[in-house]
Amino acid sequence: MAKFARQAWYMIGWAQELGDGVLARTLLGVPVVVFRDGHGVPHAIHDRCPHRFAPLSTGVRKDDRIMCRYHGLTFDGSGACVENPLGGAVPGVCRVGAYPVAEQDRILWIWMGDPERADPSRIARFPWIDDPALRCVFGYTQVNAHYELLTDNLMDLTHARFLHPGFGGDLYSPRNSVEIDGDSVVSKYIVENIDNPEFPENAWSAHGRKVDLWDDIRWHAPATLSLSSGVVLTGRPRNEGCEIPSAHVITPETADRSHYFWGSALPKDSPLSNGDFTQVLSQAFDTEDKPMIEDVHRRMAGEDFWDLKPLLLRTDNAAVRVRRILHAMIEQEAAGHA
Amino acid sequence: MAKFARQAWYMIGWAQELGDGVLARTLLGVPVVVFRDGHGVPHAIHDRCPHRFAPLSTGVRKDDRIMCRYHGLTFDGSGACVENPLGGAVPGVCRVGAYPVAEQDRILWIWMGDPERADPSRIARFPWIDDPALRCVFGYTQVNAHYELLTDNLMDLTHARFLHPGFGGDLYSPRNSVEIDGDSVVSKYIVENIDNPEFPENAWSAHGRKVDLWDDIRWHAPATLSLSSGVVLTGRPRNEGCEIPSAHVITPETADRSHYFWGSALPKDSPLSNGDFTQVLSQAFDTEDKPMIEDVHRRMAGEDFWDLKPLLLRTDNAAVRVRRILHAMIEQEAAGHA
Amino acid sequence: MAKFARQAWYMIGWAQELGDGVLARTLLGVPVVVFRDGHGVPHAIHDRCPHRFAPLSTGVRKDDRIMCRYHGLTFDGSGACVENPLGGAVPGVCRVGAYPVAEQDRILWIWMGDPERADPSRIARFPWIDDPALRCVFGYTQVNAHYELLTDNLMDLTHARFLHPGFGGDLYSPRNSVEIDGDSVVSKYIVENIDNPEFPENAWSAHGRKVDLWDDIRWHAPATLSLSSGVVLTGRPRNEGCEIPSAHVITPETADRSHYFWGSALPKDSPLSNGDFTQVLSQAFDTEDKPMIEDVHRRMAGEDFWDLKPLLLRTDNAAVRVRRILHAMIEQEAAGHA
Repeated sequence: MAKFARQAWYMIGWAQELGDGVLARTLLGVPVVVFRDGHGVPHAIHDRCPHRFAPLSTGVRKDDRIMCRYHGLTFDGSGACVENPLGGAVPGVCRVGAYPVAEQDRILWIWMGDPERADPSRIARFPWIDDPALRCVFGYTQVNAHYELLTDNLMDLTHARFLHPGFGGDLYSPRNSVEIDGDSVVSKYIVENIDNPEFPENAWSAHGRKVDLWDDIRWHAPATLSLSSGVVLTGRPRNEGCEIPSAHVITPETADRSHYFWGSALPKDSPLSNGDFTQVLSQAFDTEDKPMIEDVHRRMAGEDFWDLKPLLLRTDNAAVRVRRILHAMIEQEAAGHA
Repeated sequence: MAKFARQAWYMIGWAQELGDGVLARTLLGVPVVVFRDGHGVPHAIHDRCPHRFAPLSTGVRKDDRIMCRYHGLTFDGSGACVENPLGGAVPGVCRVGAYPVAEQDRILWIWMGDPERADPSRIARFPWIDDPALRCVFGYTQVNAHYELLTDNLMDLTHARFLHPGFGGDLYSPRNSVEIDGDSVVSKYIVENIDNPEFPENAWSAHGRKVDLWDDIRWHAPATLSLSSGVVLTGRPRNEGCEIPSAHVITPETADRSHYFWGSALPKDSPLSNGDFTQVLSQAFDTEDKPMIEDVHRRMAGEDFWDLKPLLLRTDNAAVRVRRILHAMIEQEAAGHA
Repeated sequence: MAKFARQAWYMIGWAQELGDGVLARTLLGVPVVVFRDGHGVPHAIHDRCPHRFAPLSTGVRKDDRIMCRYHGLTFDGSGACVENPLGGAVPGVCRVGAYPVAEQDRILWIWMGDPERADPSRIARFPWIDDPALRCVFGYTQVNAHYELLTDNLMDLTHARFLHPGFGGDLYSPRNSVEIDGDSVVSKYIVENIDNPEFPENAWSAHGRKVDLWDDIRWHAPATLSLSSGVVLTGRPRNEGCEIPSAHVITPETADRSHYFWGSALPKDSPLSNGDFTQVLSQAFDTEDKPMIEDVHRRMAGEDFWDLKPLLLRTDNAAVRVRRILHAMIEQEAAGHA
């Protein structure tokens, strides 16, 4: 059984993915079905009927309930079986696991640890998602790789130089600093006095002048990352330039497969259309990062990262700190001190 | 190694599947090839040459024999090697396993246990298959699920209410009784005084009057099920209505995959054509039952049924009895008291 | 972990497969990338960056070097990391494994054992590949089977009678003799006084007269086979007929998958075109041998060949001797006496 941090909030998906129906997704190896009750409140329950193990997600929504399509047992959002249409009494033990759910910043979050410890105030925020001065795009990619490999990718943005030509390519040779900020790790990248690369130029033209680029990425355990990227004329303060905030949130599906959710925002008056903005991000994550990360996962052939004795470079500083904090969390949980 | 009851008859396939050629099928994890000798008698032997392990089923039929396509060793229906075309003597030890075969009711049966215990008189009968007053249709489906999940499905027909709208849907809310009859388990379902559902109406019109429906399903170990379904005007004796007999026979291919054979018959004068009759049954088994049963198998993720602590309802009575009888058989065999 | 003979030369591929780019291939379970330096000399290194385990084969070739596409570490053909474009010092421990490579007879060979024991003079030769009087065709097939099953196939050519109708079919009923010649096993097949079968007739017409056929196949450890096939008028010396030399070289990819390289040559004046010659060989290996060998591998279901107690025939003599020599090599290596 793969070891995941359980006492943590994980992203289920974008709120817009759920709508009025059901959303079925395997999270941390557990099949979960999410649906809204009559007040619009989302609920997440184990997607397996306790009777004959049918998926509830292929069942029938009835008001606040979901009815198993195999033999009709009907469950509410608390996981309680509230009806047996075949008329027998409903045994009190008939229920499925339910998980605390939180919805904020247009994101659905789930807590799969001890329910009494679920504290929504600890969820990382993405307030820019609802900022009326911005317009957002969202994406979702499934990656056949261990989720920590996606975090590694994001915590060492120097890979943009080699993998993402549109984001800078050879020009992207940043200075980097790493800070620990409470439970977070923040890695900051600065490139100064270069020609504006293709992507930032399309979002915010420098009209031929030199620019500075910044990328500040903040990791919240277990795998929620908040990135502030930006471009400004060389030497000017950041608030004169263009900031592009983004969310990168990873949830393990299994030890070998991950959900990768990404969202980003532009100022409303940016010349880059939402379609083109989505396309450039999708190109980076789906066709540049994803194949590389899947290759790495295959090359690791199921072995533990540290057992493979990776060569550590200065640029691995942030990613290695993240790995150590996360593994300490998992070990603390295993030891019962979480 | 999956545990199957070995001292039992299993269905290989419909006689019409064999014809003059060979039929290759994996049964209980063992590849078997079946062919007829010059008298039309079917034989089943291990589908693996003892020399270099080639499948004999890709070989060449010569009269009563089958020649391996790799190096020419030729076997008869008893499993004996009767020729080495390359001229060397045929070693006496050169033979493959042979299995007793029986053919009745247009079905080929195999016995993979101790040959001296193979008693064809113990095979369940389907005499209606050769009844000149009826016309039959036959089907075969491979299901990616443990074979007991298919038996479970058939022994609890209340699922028709949720999964098979054409067979009754919400109207199918039957009374059920379960009997043990010798080695068999019989589960009887009765629905009274309803509008005739779509499928029985197409087979036998009630001309707008209310009907009673019955479904009597009988399980013979290990996985041979005989079903009598019928419709009659409410309150009238069954012989005034229309009986639709059917066979549902399941043979494990492996622990994760099953052969599901089904056949059914209508009175010759039924308005339902054989084509439409086949279509409605195939829809039920291939597109309604099969995906559900495969979902259940996946949700069980290789775990034992009882280890998952299934919730037991009154409607599970017949299926649970079947599981207990079958497991007792398997344990008796393992203990050598079979 | 599958046991392979390590102190041996294995074929990587045909020289023409490499060209100016890189060739990525998994050999003995190890991903390897091959590329030429500025002098055209081929180098083979482990296809996994020691930093973050990205495949180097998807990287960028720069002169004599290959740059990892993930974070830019750059390696030369010796496996040494020669540049970190992000500016940090290159740690001395930063290197990947390198393997001795030899190129001769238009074939690339690799040595994955102790480098100091790599002696190119021990590689089997195929001098006919560069014979100006001949014209060659080459092929490559991936086979989902253990590599010894391919050697078995080649060391017992009697299978041609059953599997390859164009090579003789029923006429191919050869006398066979087997010799041990140093480290090699040689198996010789002679068929005398038959009508010329389809394939040799197309390559060299007997104008309706009877012919003798010969096939001398020589095995060099671990899986390099050299075949001299030929046709000549009955009773005449071989040098009056037509000899068709061929190479059959097998390299394990994993324990369940093999690289099968084949090449063959005709006299320049043969009426058979290179296209038709390739087609007839490809038909034999790709559509006749390969499916059979894959069937055998599946039928063996992961079990050891000897554990399955294969029936041994006189015609297995050569293949069994090869298996015994090879297994003795592997055991000697394991015991440290290789």
